[in-house]
Amino acid sequence: MNLSRTRERLVVIGGDAAGMSAASQARRLKGPGELEIVAFERGHFTSYSACGIPYWVGGDVTDRDELVARTPEEHRARDIDLRLRTEVTEIDPAGQRVRARDVESGEESWTSYDKLVIATGARPIRPDMPGADAAGVHGVQTLDDGQALLDTLEGTRGRRAVVVGAGYIGVEMAEALIKRGYEVTVVNRGSEPMSTLDPDMGRLVHEAMEGLGITMVNDAEVTNILTGDDGAVRAVVTDDREYPADVVVLGIGVRPETALARAAGLPLGPHGGLLTDRSMRVRGHENLWAGGDCVEVLDLVSGQERHIPLGTHANKHGQVIGTNIGGGYATFPGVVGTAVSKVCDLEIARTGLREKDARRVGLRFESVTIESTSRAGYYPNASPMTVKMLAEHRTGRLLGVQIVGREGAGKRVDIAAVALTAGMTVEQMTALDLGYAPPFSPVWDPVLVAARKAAAKVRSTS
Amino acid sequence: MNLSRTRERLVVIGGDAAGMSAASQARRLKGPGELEIVAFERGHFTSYSACGIPYWVGGDVTDRDELVARTPEEHRARDIDLRLRTEVTEIDPAGQRVRARDVESGEESWTSYDKLVIATGARPIRPDMPGADAAGVHGVQTLDDGQALLDTLEGTRGRRAVVVGAGYIGVEMAEALIKRGYEVTVVNRGSEPMSTLDPDMGRLVHEAMEGLGITMVNDAEVTNILTGDDGAVRAVVTDDREYPADVVVLGIGVRPETALARAAGLPLGPHGGLLTDRSMRVRGHENLWAGGDCVEVLDLVSGQERHIPLGTHANKHGQVIGTNIGGGYATFPGVVGTAVSKVCDLEIARTGLREKDARRVGLRFESVTIESTSRAGYYPNASPMTVKMLAEHRTGRLLGVQIVGREGAGKRVDIAAVALTAGMTVEQMTALDLGYAPPFSPVWDPVLVAARKAAAKVRSTS
Repeated sequence: MNLSRTRERLVVIGGDAAGMSAASQARRLKGPGELEIVAFERGHFTSYSACGIPYWVGGDVTDRDELVARTPEEHRARDIDLRLRTEVTEIDPAGQRVRARDVESGEESWTSYDKLVIATGARPIRPDMPGADAAGVHGVQTLDDGQALLDTLEGTRGRRAVVVGAGYIGVEMAEALIKRGYEVTVVNRGSEPMSTLDPDMGRLVHEAMEGLGITMVNDAEVTNILTGDDGAVRAVVTDDREYPADVVVLGIGVRPETALARAAGLPLGPHGGLLTDRSMRVRGHENLWAGGDCVEVLDLVSGQERHIPLGTHANKHGQVIGTNIGGGYATFPGVVGTAVSKVCDLEIARTGLREKDARRVGLRFESVTIESTSRAGYYPNASPMTVKMLAEHRTGRLLGVQIVGREGAGKRVDIAAVALTAGMTVEQMTALDLGYAPPFSPVWDPVLVAARKAAAKVRSTS
Repeated sequence: MNLSRTRERLVVIGGDAAGMSAASQARRLKGPGELEIVAFERGHFTSYSACGIPYWVGGDVTDRDELVARTPEEHRARDIDLRLRTEVTEIDPAGQRVRARDVESGEESWTSYDKLVIATGARPIRPDMPGADAAGVHGVQTLDDGQALLDTLEGTRGRRAVVVGAGYIGVEMAEALIKRGYEVTVVNRGSEPMSTLDPDMGRLVHEAMEGLGITMVNDAEVTNILTGDDGAVRAVVTDDREYPADVVVLGIGVRPETALARAAGLPLGPHGGLLTDRSMRVRGHENLWAGGDCVEVLDLVSGQERHIPLGTHANKHGQVIGTNIGGGYATFPGVVGTAVSKVCDLEIARTGLREKDARRVGLRFESVTIESTSRAGYYPNASPMTVKMLAEHRTGRLLGVQIVGREGAGKRVDIAAVALTAGMTVEQMTALDLGYAPPFSPVWDPVLVAARKAAAKVRSTS
């Protein structure tokens, strides 16, 4: 506690979802007379939706500012001392201070804190290969990245795009580039796109992407990126082929941005993210909190830590941190691993464990896959939907659900997300009272059809 | 047990969802050598979707046969002795037999049973008033009713339709008639349409219906129906007005069809439906089962019986009954009262208790209502959604949710349905890991926004 000041000072590192949600919630609970709030952000923007970038690039969202939930000015109007273009370069937990550098001038100075929120986010994995930094090769992690990609797209005559990686960002960027009229090739290291699904479900995504005119290349390792005489990207090279490219988007995932935390000796988990307790306090540190893409979260199904960079978690973390700093009480109990995405009209959703996750954590399981429809079969626009469900052997406890289908498929995963959180068995799920009317569901909702089949399999194998 | 026969005989009364699901599931588990199955149905059809009738009338479904999930011939091919146009007129539990009459010939005969399934459904409430049976006045309970209504619509030149009742059937029929080009007036006894919602949420439906060009008349009691010289309907008369009508649809609800059960001395509940145990066995009767629209179900939230005529429950009941009769084990634990419907593009959903339900069963509650959107606000076609949430005072246990919105609103109620089943508190719900991506949800799903507000209110009032 710094006794020379009459009010406490909260310092926040990182001006996006987790950091600014924490700051805003703390401010809501404690006025400027009680709590001073200083926030450092190395970029130009605050509180923006990185998840929205593919839709901005694709043209669904026309104005970058729409992705900004709260501007720097709005934060300042709430008495948050926001310092843009200022990068924190060191955390000194013993001295309760951080060192920050003005990105423009290069000047550095120390700022002391009573409480510190670390919300440094994630950094994209950039492959260590020749050409990865060439003109026309883009990540899509920040608004600045999105703007740079759009500038390239507008300045390039060629229409061949290669997306490296076939996870959420990869498939969403494939959609964005298709919408902009590009010939799109997705080069993927794994055996099928969407490695967050089991390969049999990923196969459905693969087929749908090809149906959309996207060329899907699996089991391919990118070795280098070729550039032309002008220094601009010309092709993406894999172990056995060259894919001509006028623009390349890298969507090969992110890692927690925890260099500062590591240097400060803070506890990191197996995935390199900060480890917190349930109140989002850094483990073993009374006055440090961390949230968002730089932390690991407890997976309630596996009982192990995971790194899940996702805006919805970051917002919850910020809310919990701000409430606790503001004198309230809140916890973040963990996640079940729910995610939903789409490629054009194909909806892709998952929650809980995949087969390989279950095996890795020592769970024996039964797995079923069913085909159903989004609406009553006779109702117009009923579209096919595939649901895969995993249940624990003998106990029948739900372990995971994956859904691939069209309109109405994606958000059905929420049924399973809540059931997982509640620890339901698939037998219990068969009796769930889900909304039914012909425009919304068959008389047995697809999730119930899967639960019935899973329950039968659990019984027959017990 | 009838010792004169070497195999057991199962008799089923009623050939729609509950009865034929029970018969089919029993047949799946026991072949014809073990179990004889006789099913009586007084109408022409089996296993059809009554819920689909409004969409058939409205033209979304073009062929009546599409509403039939399984035809009489299909049932017979599975060794079910199905007797159409045969009405059971008496149940004799002591003698283990039922008396049935051939509707065409009038001949009656007794059939003995070892096990009996009562699935007699519900009968529409027909108002006891002059003109209620006039030509052009229609219910929409059965496929035969739907056909009769379509015949009237095709034979009538006038384009004025009056729908009596503003529940699910009423609003769905209003949509159907609007689609067919009618001027539609809905006459409603209650203060707002959709009395399965609280009036403040019903008000939103009211406004949306008027926006669709439907004239909504609330607080109006129909006193009689006027007919012309030709005997056809001419107007619907309320306590203070006349509404000209070329066709009238009655959608004022249904009651359990339990005259046979009552005459046989079987146990009926407060709403006139049969009372069963968790295995769907008629209480106190070892060899009688009942399911579908003729039974009362346990409301898991209120702890009291309710009558909820809905195909999805009927199918579950049939499945449970057939499993138990087939020698397996299954239960129907109860419902939480989930229902979803739509009028054109307006989606209406509810689960759990309304304010008046909570009061009636002695629960004190906090109620909140929030406005959110179906997708991230910046994503195209994000549409507004209103979510009302009730939580128990002090404990914060979720009691009910009502949602009114556009695309994506209705099935979100499933999140709350599962949470209710699991007995979650609204505070627990704030941490739910629901699917998030900009095309599917704001970063805080509308249900989470409601849960956060409800949790705050519970805390502030405890």
